[in-house]
Amino acid sequence: MAEHSAERNKIAMGRMLASEPQLVGIEPAGNVVPGMTPETILTSGAPLEWSDYSGGQRRAVLYGAVYEGLARDVDEAERLIHGGRIMVRSTQDHGCIGSVAGIFTASMPVLIVEDATHGHRAFCSLYEGPNRLKLNYGAYDEDVRRSLDWLRDTLSPILGAAIRQGGPLALKPLMARALRMGDELHSRNTAATILFTREINKAFLELYANGRKTDVLAAFDFLCANEYSFLRIGMAAAKVMADAAHGIEGSSVVTAMAINCRDMAIRVSGLGNAWFRGPHPSLEGRFFDGFSSEDTEWIGGESCVTETVGLGGFAQVCAPTLQAYQGGDYQGMMRTNEEMYRITLCEHEVFVLPPFGFRGAPTGIDVFKVVDTGITPAIDGGLAGKKGGQIGAGVLRPPLDCFVDAASALRREHER
Amino acid sequence: MAEHSAERNKIAMGRMLASEPQLVGIEPAGNVVPGMTPETILTSGAPLEWSDYSGGQRRAVLYGAVYEGLARDVDEAERLIHGGRIMVRSTQDHGCIGSVAGIFTASMPVLIVEDATHGHRAFCSLYEGPNRLKLNYGAYDEDVRRSLDWLRDTLSPILGAAIRQGGPLALKPLMARALRMGDELHSRNTAATILFTREINKAFLELYANGRKTDVLAAFDFLCANEYSFLRIGMAAAKVMADAAHGIEGSSVVTAMAINCRDMAIRVSGLGNAWFRGPHPSLEGRFFDGFSSEDTEWIGGESCVTETVGLGGFAQVCAPTLQAYQGGDYQGMMRTNEEMYRITLCEHEVFVLPPFGFRGAPTGIDVFKVVDTGITPAIDGGLAGKKGGQIGAGVLRPPLDCFVDAASALRREHER
Repeated sequence: MAEHSAERNKIAMGRMLASEPQLVGIEPAGNVVPGMTPETILTSGAPLEWSDYSGGQRRAVLYGAVYEGLARDVDEAERLIHGGRIMVRSTQDHGCIGSVAGIFTASMPVLIVEDATHGHRAFCSLYEGPNRLKLNYGAYDEDVRRSLDWLRDTLSPILGAAIRQGGPLALKPLMARALRMGDELHSRNTAATILFTREINKAFLELYANGRKTDVLAAFDFLCANEYSFLRIGMAAAKVMADAAHGIEGSSVVTAMAINCRDMAIRVSGLGNAWFRGPHPSLEGRFFDGFSSEDTEWIGGESCVTETVGLGGFAQVCAPTLQAYQGGDYQGMMRTNEEMYRITLCEHEVFVLPPFGFRGAPTGIDVFKVVDTGITPAIDGGLAGKKGGQIGAGVLRPPLDCFVDAASALRREHER
Repeated sequence: MAEHSAERNKIAMGRMLASEPQLVGIEPAGNVVPGMTPETILTSGAPLEWSDYSGGQRRAVLYGAVYEGLARDVDEAERLIHGGRIMVRSTQDHGCIGSVAGIFTASMPVLIVEDATHGHRAFCSLYEGPNRLKLNYGAYDEDVRRSLDWLRDTLSPILGAAIRQGGPLALKPLMARALRMGDELHSRNTAATILFTREINKAFLELYANGRKTDVLAAFDFLCANEYSFLRIGMAAAKVMADAAHGIEGSSVVTAMAINCRDMAIRVSGLGNAWFRGPHPSLEGRFFDGFSSEDTEWIGGESCVTETVGLGGFAQVCAPTLQAYQGGDYQGMMRTNEEMYRITLCEHEVFVLPPFGFRGAPTGIDVFKVVDTGITPAIDGGLAGKKGGQIGAGVLRPPLDCFVDAASALRREHER
């Protein structure tokens, strides 16, 4: 079996590395996301029954219905979801990838990333901005609503125009550069955001000169003030690369990791669309001032898609400044990153790690290697608070459970 | 004596750390450089008699005279210099800081950096661009002339306009950020150049909309293509910071390091304008394809001013990508950088090194510590070739000689 899966993994990894994600546009989700209807709301993580959504993630879905105008208030939203008039679906069943609760409604703009090699697409929503309260953290008020309106009515039209003007933007070279400039592209996206801003600047110059002054300035200011913005583009790019490796019979490569309010789940290349679910990750990290582990709430999150393609915790050594954000020291970061070579199938050809002498990032998590070593993926992540907002950051480690189940399923599959 | 100098060094370092360099403009050297006349040519390093300038540095001065229109050809330039009609002077006697041969003539544009705390200024010329042949590397032809014309007639007016429009640009925060983004600000200036480009972008938008389209695009393209450009701004900033620490009686802080075709020389805070000269540095590095150490020529260089303020080799650990440029491995870079704490007086408050847990960069080279430890400063530097152009890069180490002489002079001074 090991031999068979090695051969199949080679095919899967060849496809992942050959993927060439390009940013091609920004459109309302309803126009481009497959299967999206005006009454659909997408949320992060493996799908659950509506009755199983709780806490911040449930609130986020309900608020999404209110924001979209599908319900006057959360009570009406509850009734309409219960009655099947509003459909709650899983992001990844629709090519989307969600940050934290990851709410997508039909009118919300999504970044569109396309694989120039294989043709498939992935979609991610826009970063909501600097307010601690955000819809994707399960919070909603007048400010949250205004931010979402501004993304839809101001930022996405001008960014969309700039992207159209510049043509498809190749993301892999930009992301590889960002790794050389202090990002690991999960918890730090500063260089990537600045490089992205520079890439679209010629289009901004033209739009500014042609009557779009106010919008260009507002978009430029947003990108300068919110250097985390690139994460959403990077997540869609990572999903495109991971999806390229999906669906190879017999392959044990992890192609998706996703968190919802109930569990952490993985999907595996050779195991179709099944999710293997286990308990939430444990955390080593740092709580922001005034918060503690008791304030934590799991409300979903799929930005760990970056770790499935050799970024984030798998490129942590590129971002020594994360010590200040998520705690720990640089030697520890080096050890964590080094360890990821033990559970991966290859070294990335384009995402290289300068502090490791330009060694390729450890890429392609192998279910069997995880089970054999007992080492689970190191995920650079943010933490949501019970009252909404981000309250900490650190390295998340999922327990072995979902990997053990996936390994058993692969063995059963092989014996059939 | 040690006690006395410790007290005096505290004053000197207090001034260096309090310095707040700001980019205030770009003007022709003749308009702003103190003591500059239409017939003056400035070149890097401690001053020499004209007869002592040789090779590429001598050629660079002669070509400078031809470029400026002071002489029809190099033979006429030789005669006019010999006859005292053209004056060849040392950059640092005029507040200037030179890259490689560092040629300044009256019509050439200079970046003006001013210390908002203490009021003094420093000046640096502009990066000549991507051609391997450059005047500051001792080469001159039609392309070199055209590049210099373009800097004077196109780049510097539009950059100058952008800087004026944006107001004085505080450089220390920008440089501190660049250290967090993979630069060490001597041999790598990528992040700083990109951050600088972003800083002036609002002015670019306005200038573009107001009829300066072509110039703005050309300047933007130049800054995107030449990510080394910031070095010149950084050098002027470093000189302003080093100069702030100069002239404190009894202080053993190195406030200038400079190379000319004959020697490497240092200036010390408590020893006035005297230069202490010694042999050229040794090199551990990498020659570009087809070149070897035999092709090397010393033709001047003052970018090592960055090392006098805690940058370059003193912040090497921030720029792991330099392995590809100058050879060596990251562990070695860490050791080299670590060693600099043994010869410096303090840790920088603003220039911090994330891979060392945000420890401040080792700052303020102490002549006595250098002599006592036998460790000389690690300088990230480029190497000039005999036929012009850059042929390699690496870590330069000056011999102890000039430090030994300066230490003796300090002792004599104290005993008087």
